[in-house]
Amino acid sequence: MRDAYHEELDSIGDGLVEMARLVGSAIGRATTAILDSDLKLAEAVIEADQKVDDLQHELEARAITLLARQQPVATDLRIVVTSLRMSADLERSGDLAQHVAKLARLRYPERAVPHDLHATILEMGQLAQRLMAKAAEVIITKDVDLALQLEQDDDAMDLLHRALFQHLMDDRWKHGIETAVDVTLLGRYYERYADHAVAVAKRVVYLVTGEHPDDLQSDIQPATQVEGA
Amino acid sequence: MRDAYHEELDSIGDGLVEMARLVGSAIGRATTAILDSDLKLAEAVIEADQKVDDLQHELEARAITLLARQQPVATDLRIVVTSLRMSADLERSGDLAQHVAKLARLRYPERAVPHDLHATILEMGQLAQRLMAKAAEVIITKDVDLALQLEQDDDAMDLLHRALFQHLMDDRWKHGIETAVDVTLLGRYYERYADHAVAVAKRVVYLVTGEHPDDLQSDIQPATQVEGA
Repeated sequence: MRDAYHEELDSIGDGLVEMARLVGSAIGRATTAILDSDLKLAEAVIEADQKVDDLQHELEARAITLLARQQPVATDLRIVVTSLRMSADLERSGDLAQHVAKLARLRYPERAVPHDLHATILEMGQLAQRLMAKAAEVIITKDVDLALQLEQDDDAMDLLHRALFQHLMDDRWKHGIETAVDVTLLGRYYERYADHAVAVAKRVVYLVTGEHPDDLQSDIQPATQVEGA
Repeated sequence: MRDAYHEELDSIGDGLVEMARLVGSAIGRATTAILDSDLKLAEAVIEADQKVDDLQHELEARAITLLARQQPVATDLRIVVTSLRMSADLERSGDLAQHVAKLARLRYPERAVPHDLHATILEMGQLAQRLMAKAAEVIITKDVDLALQLEQDDDAMDLLHRALFQHLMDDRWKHGIETAVDVTLLGRYYERYADHAVAVAKRVVYLVTGEHPDDLQSDIQPATQVEGA
């Protein structure tokens, strides 16, 4: 019985890694779709999110069955409850990748991102994908140091986000309001995506150390704050 | 023992209602702060979010203790797990109210919202607060009909959000990029806040009926889609 139980726990972990893999791929592909204005790729990303949602539902059902049948305590209980939270973070990350793809589809055949912001958005997309790849690695290895490293990477995302806003607010902005709105939302999607990847890693820290890292769920201050202070 | 157990379950419900009350008040006050450019009120909202975070941590700790000690099954287990999710929704709603307040603080003594959008933002703020008040009532009464009514209210929020974007995209927009960015983010905060209130109500439906309402966690399509299709 005990063996089947730990197999079940492991399979929840495998499900989380699979979700992280899928949403990591999704943000990379969504970024390509929006930069290249590739409608087919955008639609593929939009459709693929269903798989992430299905995985989350499966994983939740499995976690609840495990709670009911095995009634874990202590560490095992913490693992199951934390897994539920991680799956919610990953599902939400998938939604955000889907939002990027939907914006690509909406603007097709135009490009949502002007040329002078191409490099910044590319970097945000790549960083988001790397963050999620590391989060997956943290789930597998339970490496606390790697998890803490994600916070530094997230600082890099904040810097990119600030750069994006500075560019927007620059008097020389010549792309009009629609593009400003698109870029504002894009920036927010990447920033939130990164927050969720960091949250996943921090939850692993909580599992390993038993300590709640500082307030997981609040994200950074609104990006427009950049030109304040 | 059984009595203490149900008392504990009830106290989790009370905690959720208290959280909903606090974040409902927060979004109302944040809206006033941003419309009136009231710095003190904005700061009060920003500070008060700590109380919401504390409540969430308490509630989570209580839920996990209850899972470990009482090992609930069936309906009771579902209540505890769903409560954890609701507390995450409510905590996030609090963050979003805080974001509105931070934007008010950032722009002070200027107003972030131009006069011609005052009415729309006021309506979004009021609707958000009403949605949360109804979500609290749904937690208390477990009234499935009321819960489903929240979805209709959320449609009204989507309409307001679209109106906001139409206004932004209008060629006669004369408030510049910074205000366009602010209004874009504000719209997103209210929309997400409403999504979380609806999610809370839907989770109660799940508890009562045992059925997963359609995909809870994905929010509506990006608002910029309004001028597509």
